Parts: sequence; structure tokens; C-alpha cells
Amino acid sequence: MIFVTPPGMPYSQPMAIHPLWYRDGVLYVLDQTLLPRKEVVREYHHVEGVAYAIRTMIIRGAPAIGVATAYAMALGALDLHERDNREQRMAEFRGRLESTRPTAVNLRWALDRMMNAAAINSHLPLKEWQQQLVAEANRIREEDIAMCRAIGAHGLPLIPDKATVLTYCNAGALATAGYGTALGVVRAAHEAGRQIRVYACETRPFLQGARLTSWELMKDGVDVTLICDNMAGHFLSRGEITCVVVGADRIAANGDFANKIGTYGVALAARENGVPFYVAAPTSTLDASLPDGKTIPIEERSGHELIQFAGDPIAPQDVKVRNPAFDVTPARYVTAIITETGVHHPPFDFSSRRGEEE
Amino acid sequence: MIFVTPPGMPYSQPMAIHPLWYRDGVLYVLDQTLLPRKEVVREYHHVEGVAYAIRTMIIRGAPAIGVATAYAMALGALDLHERDNREQRMAEFRGRLESTRPTAVNLRWALDRMMNAAAINSHLPLKEWQQQLVAEANRIREEDIAMCRAIGAHGLPLIPDKATVLTYCNAGALATAGYGTALGVVRAAHEAGRQIRVYACETRPFLQGARLTSWELMKDGVDVTLICDNMAGHFLSRGEITCVVVGADRIAANGDFANKIGTYGVALAARENGVPFYVAAPTSTLDASLPDGKTIPIEERSGHELIQFAGDPIAPQDVKVRNPAFDVTPARYVTAIITETGVHHPPFDFSSRRGEEE
Repeated sequence: MIFVTPPGMPYSQPMAIHPLWYRDGVLYVLDQTLLPRKEVVREYHHVEGVAYAIRTMIIRGAPAIGVATAYAMALGALDLHERDNREQRMAEFRGRLESTRPTAVNLRWALDRMMNAAAINSHLPLKEWQQQLVAEANRIREEDIAMCRAIGAHGLPLIPDKATVLTYCNAGALATAGYGTALGVVRAAHEAGRQIRVYACETRPFLQGARLTSWELMKDGVDVTLICDNMAGHFLSRGEITCVVVGADRIAANGDFANKIGTYGVALAARENGVPFYVAAPTSTLDASLPDGKTIPIEERSGHELIQFAGDPIAPQDVKVRNPAFDVTPARYVTAIITETGVHHPPFDFSSRRGEEE
Repeated sequence: MIFVTPPGMPYSQPMAIHPLWYRDGVLYVLDQTLLPRKEVVREYHHVEGVAYAIRTMIIRGAPAIGVATAYAMALGALDLHERDNREQRMAEFRGRLESTRPTAVNLRWALDRMMNAAAINSHLPLKEWQQQLVAEANRIREEDIAMCRAIGAHGLPLIPDKATVLTYCNAGALATAGYGTALGVVRAAHEAGRQIRVYACETRPFLQGARLTSWELMKDGVDVTLICDNMAGHFLSRGEITCVVVGADRIAANGDFANKIGTYGVALAARENGVPFYVAAPTSTLDASLPDGKTIPIEERSGHELIQFAGDPIAPQDVKVRNPAFDVTPARYVTAIITETGVHHPPFDFSSRRGEEE
């Protein structure tokens, strides 16, 4: 273990798990590809490094990607000189970051915020302009933590004492600036003294559930049990699950949402067995421009994630592979969507707002 | 590669893949835990060795377990001396084998056949009695191959040209004495010249789909694409799958059936998206003694299968784990059950028969 809670971090509240933070021109990122075996913190000084970290899932989770993207834009600004065309260079950085992961909309949301901050401060001298962009990235990060805590507070009444909560992938502290969305709700219930238990699906092929959700919940003393993704239906059908709580990478205006591949199957099995199914996500995940989930772009990743594990072959190496990273769950399977503004019930309508309380 | 098709094998028909065969007091078993990396054939001379091979999944798949069990009983008989109480010793062997895997009913079916053969030939001198038991095991093996081919022939009309067939786990040549049940239907379509494509779910945690189904279909020149289990719903919802064909480990009188964990979720997603869902299994898989699937015993295996891969940790090593090896799919999700006697449509009734054609 290198270090996970270095001194001098600009945290408003103490937290056990810090996936990324910024100090003095450096973005520090806990490398999630190595967890839980090794806790290694990477340092990035430029846009390209952060783009690589997002693409290779050193940092992942829609809200965390948004925060990392904001800092990447700030690092880009810090790299500029007096002679540079700020507008043109910032647009280049935006293009580079936009291409890393197509599904999570928080990435585009953070880019919009940073481009806007760059524009409205464009009259400032370079150094002050750069400071404004660092300040905006810091605000996005602080807001993300505050949003997660608000999601937790709003979700708390949905989690009864002695509940067994099934979750999928990692919508936790590691997927955000800290605290988590789906796991924010879990943390809120745990902090409120409720006896809860979490069933974590391992989440193939990248194993976010096995590697990350198990790790961070155990660190916080939450009772967690690991299962394979294909076991969710079994436990739901046997009455062993009180409710399902998952995150989201993009939510369309009608409540259809994209999340880690396999979420759709869990939602189907929850509905079939009368188990409440909750989505927890900040309003930065809402995409009012899409009427429904049909046109959410689905990232397809390399087949290597399926045929090898830690360099070992686990299938014929020349077999054809499909590897979509996300699926779309129709809103009709969703019991409620929890954002920082409140708990939203069907029928969902996020077309003209960014999730005010209904 | 050691050898996979040794000379002198008692095959009635040529096949590319031989999971197990018997010769001169030795049961040869292709070690499925090492595929596709290594093709190693193990030799067993006694009941205990075969019990170990079944328990550790060196040989797996309900029909193959049945055949291996029959040979184990024959090996047990060959170990007996004139002074032994045959009835008592055979009952001991039965008890040892019965405890290896609780869900597959073919194991118990094969034990019944062998105990019956032992009883009706009990008047014979030892050597002739032993020969009768070897002959009975050989018959069970030959019948299994013939049943698979009949299942393939009956299933053929259900698979249209240019179909994309989704399958789960490995209900293939490796899961039987050869040819396969679900993959027997696929092979029949392929042999009939139909252009078909198979989507194989990897099947966590043991990866039967990634390691075995991919391997055996590629060996036979069938177009196969590997996906994660959690992707089945996505492809079913996108209209990319023509039909689903899976095997079964035990079928209750009403058509509820146990199969590899995750089958239930695939069946749900198939029904939700209007995709036909077929079960292919020999009548030795029918358990007329169970009115429905509720009381089928579900084997729970070691948590090590989830937290390690090839000795590497893939989760916190002290995390709690659940690892049920099977789930039960209610008959209402099943379009048809294909046995060697024909294609059975709902409502299913296997209570008083062993699957005569309806």
C-alpha cells in the first residue's frame, strides 16, 4: 500500500476512500485496475494521461469520470502559454476527452461546465483564468461528494432495517469523488445504524463488484457477500433480496437508463419477483436531450477482457467475442430514481428539468 | 496434447470429441478443468478416483456424470473378490458416488440401472457378473450417444437457417458421452448444412461456456461468439438472438427444471423479448418423483471458485461468498423440451412416463 489518505487533501468531510484528488498541478488517481491486490496512486500532469486513465479504467464510474474530466481540462489550461489560442486549445482537449468513453453522460456534462467556465472567464489574464478553471474543477468534485451524501439521505427511507440490498457493478465511493451513489444509499443506512447486508454481483468482465464493491464495503464495515452476476435471478426468486440499488451512466428523459452490462437482467428478475428496483445517480447523469434509452450509445470494448485473465487464457484465444460495456434498462422496470434533489417515481419526466424534486 | 482419439475406442460412430471411454478395466477421462489450455486424459481404476473426478468437475455435465457413474460402478465390481458380499459392497459404492453432486438426477438414474444389473445377474459367477456390469455401463454410454443424436434430429426443425442460437454453460459433447444435448441440436443443424451462429455465455464461475463450449464448437467448425453471462439479456432485447437452447440437470414432472446457475435469468429475458426457449435433455434427466422444481436440491460449491482465478486473487480473500451451482427455471418460461423421444410442448406432464412423444 502506497497511500490512500495523504495529508492536506481538500476534503470537506472525512472519508475512508479517495479515488481521486488534485493538488498543485497534479491529479492523483487511485488505480482501480489493481484493486484489491494493490493500492497504488497514479499522478497525472496533462490531459493525455487522464484520458488514458479513463480509457483503461484506472478511474471509472460515471460521476468519477466527470470529476476526472474536469481536472483534465484544468490540467490542460495549466499547460497553456500566453501565445496559445485558449478557445481552440480547450476545444482540442475537450475532443480528446470526449472520445474516451461514449456512454457516461457525466463526462460531457463536466466538459460543458469547464468550457463554460473557460468562456466566461476568458477576459482574465492567463494565470487568473487558470485558477478559475482549477477552482471550477474543485467545485465539481466537492459538489459530487455533496450530491452523493444527498442521494444517501434521500434514499435512506427506502432501506428498511435488516434489509438485504443487491447491487451491481460499483456505484460506490470509487465510482464518484467519494461516498458513492448506490453505495451512498447503503452507507447512509449503515451510518443510521440499520443492520443491512449487501449482495454484490461480481460484474464480468472487469469485476468491479468482486474487486471494488467488496473491497470498499469491507473497508467501511458493511456486511457484504459476493455472488456471480448469473446468481442474481436465483436469489431474487428465492425471496432473499429486499431491494436492488444500482447506479446509472446516463438517464434519458423518460427514465430509461444505461448502466453496466447486466443491469437489465437484474431489473427483469426484480420486477418478475416483486422486488423494488432503485436507481441512484446525480442529476449530472440525466440527459434531457434523449427522449428515451434507444439512442444511448453503447460502448463496445476489447474482446481481450473476456478471453484472458491477468494474462492467463480462459478461452480459445482466437474465439470471436462481443463485449458491450453497458445495457439499457427501460423505465418500466424502475421503482424509483434517487437523485440529490429527491426520490422520483414513475412516470418519469426529465425532459425539461435537471431532476427537481417531484 | 496427450491424446484425445486413441485407437481401439469402442465407438459406433466417429466423433471429434471424446470426454470419456472405457477399456480393459480403465476409465479414461478428458480433464475438463484444464481445457482449453491443455488436453490431458486421466486414467481411473477405482470408484474413489471417479468420485473425485466428478466432485472436482474433471468430468461434468449431467449425462456425462451418469455415464461416468455407471463405469465407476463397473470398476467397483471389478475390484470385488469371491469372498465379498456383492450386494453390500455395491451399495457402498453407490453411497460414495451419490454424494458427489446432488443436483443432476442422471447420476441417480445410472446408479439405479447398475444396481439393477448387479441384482438380476447376481446368480452368475463373479467374472461373468463383472462382465455383465461392464456391458451395462457400455450400453449406458452407447445409449447416451444415440439419445444425443435423436435429440439433435428432433430439435433440427426448430433451428431455422441463419439462426443465431444462444446457449448457456456446456450441454455439448463434453457434457455427455459425445455429441451433446443442446449442442447436439446445434450440431444437427450444422450437419444439415444450415448456416447457424452460436452465442456462448461464458458461465461463471467455472467458465464452461468460455472454456468448453467455445472450444468444442470451434473444433467442429461451428461459428461461435463468446459473451459474458450478463450480456444475454442485452442481445435478446436487441433482436440479435433467434432462439435459446440449453441443457438440464433435472426436470420435474411439471417441466420445471434445474440447470446451471444463470439459466433462469436467460429464460426470463427470452420470454420478455418473445424469443423461443428450448431445453434439450435425455429422458434420464426426468425426475417423475418431483411434482415441480421447488424441491430439487441445489448444490452450493466452494467460495474459492469466485475469489480466485488460477490461483490469483480476484476479490478480497476474506469476503463472504455464495456459490449455488444451479437454479430452477419454472416451466412457464419453456417453449419446448426436446428429448430423444420427441419435442414436448406445454403443458408438460412427465409424472407417469419417461418422456414418450406427445
